[in-house]
Amino acid sequence: MKKINVFDEGPFKDTGYGMLWVHDSANFRIINFNFKAGQTLPVHSHDVDGELSIAVLEGQGEFLGEGDAAIPAKAGDVLICPIAAPHGIRAATDMRVLVTIAPPP
Amino acid sequence: MKKINVFDEGPFKDTGYGMLWVHDSANFRIINFNFKAGQTLPVHSHDVDGELSIAVLEGQGEFLGEGDAAIPAKAGDVLICPIAAPHGIRAATDMRVLVTIAPPP
Repeated sequence: MKKINVFDEGPFKDTGYGMLWVHDSANFRIINFNFKAGQTLPVHSHDVDGELSIAVLEGQGEFLGEGDAAIPAKAGDVLICPIAAPHGIRAATDMRVLVTIAPPP
Repeated sequence: MKKINVFDEGPFKDTGYGMLWVHDSANFRIINFNFKAGQTLPVHSHDVDGELSIAVLEGQGEFLGEGDAAIPAKAGDVLICPIAAPHGIRAATDMRVLVTIAPPP
């Protein structure tokens, strides 16, 4: 068993977003991203199989998708999409999310 | 893309815990468990490969393990363990967690 607290350990950064690598194995990869208000994870995609989930732990903003797609994001939201589908995040407030990728690329 | 808000949709139950099936695919299974203070997910394990993560979204309690093992659990904690390792949860306050299983059994 391994335990990490992303509220205690997950960093915010003034420039760009903060990241905390929570876990990486053959089964899944878990990464915590922390955004200050206004920060963005630009829309991107990876040409591989598998899916990812984005759970919003704190704060609010938008999930970004293909083109100008923007879906409201708030604490408790869980977004699921193929790794190959365009995805991104824009933070309206300080925002912490947990991303799980399975299987890892 | 699919979005579910577990704070809005995840039920609490008076008897036993509440569950919300968030996602199930060949890549991972995501389930939200909601405990009222005092409720427990008894220690159990499954004799299969793979790992699971338990992210505490709200509240606090304990992660339970083999024997009498009990690790404090609070919002922001992410626990990772093999599916085959004994695991459980005891809620001290109302508590919402997100469990991700990869690959699904």
